[in-house]
Amino acid sequence: MILVNGVATDSVAATDRGLAYGDGVFRTLLARPGGLLAWQRHYRKLAHDCAALAIPCPPEPLLAQEVERAADPSDYSVIKIVITRGSGMRGYAPPESPTPTRVVMASPLPAYPREYARDGVKVHWCRTRLSFQLRLAGVKHLNRLENVLARAEWSDPAVPEGLMLDGDGNVVCGTMANLLIVEGGSLVTPELSRCGVAGVTRERVMEAAAARGVAFREEPVSQARLLDAEEALLVNSVIGVWQVRECGGRSWTPGAFAARVREWLDDEAR
Amino acid sequence: MILVNGVATDSVAATDRGLAYGDGVFRTLLARPGGLLAWQRHYRKLAHDCAALAIPCPPEPLLAQEVERAADPSDYSVIKIVITRGSGMRGYAPPESPTPTRVVMASPLPAYPREYARDGVKVHWCRTRLSFQLRLAGVKHLNRLENVLARAEWSDPAVPEGLMLDGDGNVVCGTMANLLIVEGGSLVTPELSRCGVAGVTRERVMEAAAARGVAFREEPVSQARLLDAEEALLVNSVIGVWQVRECGGRSWTPGAFAARVREWLDDEAR
Repeated sequence: MILVNGVATDSVAATDRGLAYGDGVFRTLLARPGGLLAWQRHYRKLAHDCAALAIPCPPEPLLAQEVERAADPSDYSVIKIVITRGSGMRGYAPPESPTPTRVVMASPLPAYPREYARDGVKVHWCRTRLSFQLRLAGVKHLNRLENVLARAEWSDPAVPEGLMLDGDGNVVCGTMANLLIVEGGSLVTPELSRCGVAGVTRERVMEAAAARGVAFREEPVSQARLLDAEEALLVNSVIGVWQVRECGGRSWTPGAFAARVREWLDDEAR
Repeated sequence: MILVNGVATDSVAATDRGLAYGDGVFRTLLARPGGLLAWQRHYRKLAHDCAALAIPCPPEPLLAQEVERAADPSDYSVIKIVITRGSGMRGYAPPESPTPTRVVMASPLPAYPREYARDGVKVHWCRTRLSFQLRLAGVKHLNRLENVLARAEWSDPAVPEGLMLDGDGNVVCGTMANLLIVEGGSLVTPELSRCGVAGVTRERVMEAAAARGVAFREEPVSQARLLDAEEALLVNSVIGVWQVRECGGRSWTPGAFAARVREWLDDEAR
């Protein structure tokens, strides 16, 4: 089901600035029969990202209600929320008082093989680099051509994710997931001050680690550092946690941290 | 009038990848009662940009016919063509055989004051920088948040354009126009191998200059170089040619080149 500004429909205005310029932000989260997963965090992040683009964020109760309406009450679904600056006249200048467009769509949970969570995944090493843009770093905006180009680099169905580097050659994230590495029993995640998306699951893991006294740092992660790590983990709201099993010529056996981080997330979600 | 895939409508699918990721390209051109301005060049550029994203470009006769249908036959109109990779399942991976979406819209010519062409324009110096992305440089794709952020920096209605710098501090272009500078009677335009849009009017001016034996070079243009130039010109398909009258603390009196370049373009369009 798709709701556009609260109305069940499958279309948006052809003049929407989301289409014209990617002038908007989005979120992807899980709905379970019991309710939404980490909804408050997702809404907070949505509001933060809207603010970064000076788009008025729709109120929380309105969006929560639309997400509940769109979701399948009897099964897991993936919810995508898109907020754009709304329709506009031709030209880049944002309208003074924009009327944002909100799109809420639900789709079935993708059927990833069970082995991904159990044994880890093989990961593509992307050639497409993330560009540096201080004004947009961390924000989940609709300008995602770099992710599309990176994801188009491989088609092997046994490779569900690719790792992306920035212009300096540091590893930043997957095309759809954040990255964590394990070093001497502590967690490190690439810092995202110049590019990348600061995801909600990454944030949840950081807080869960802090609550358990596990060291967690945000730092630049070179390719060598990643390949030296004890474990490398991919996290997002839909996949949860996948360990990297194979990447850039190195392979890893299943480690303790993937299961541990998954447990932290499950604990919080209970 | 708006045509989406040849049908008069004002909406596109909410699942379109143009909205989801800015996964597409666009063109803006002029339609006159006599016909389209520089259509063959615009189509060539559209096809080039589609190819850069591996989006199949709709055939020229089909698009030409839709543009003619959308345009006002009795007056000038601004035509915008958007080509996206079409609708898709959730996820960045492009569909193997995409069915592109084509949007053709016509709107009235903006009513810019006559003085802009005659006396030149005052220009804002944008703080938002253009990021480097080798895979997308020159392409007029739908990821235009940098232009939106730059254009949102000022609201003075007497300032119709802003100049954008890249991460190295070189001047690249306006938010909506290409830049040319005049140095010792020859033309220089910022090279666009790492960012910016290689516009059709810029290309037309380059060819017109070559045909007339006027030297024309693509080179990095520092801020100092721009401010030292004899003239600075902004060009695009809608505004034609505007001289920069005031920018970054410097002012220019109307020079010979703005009128000259306008004449070249008019000559070709006749």
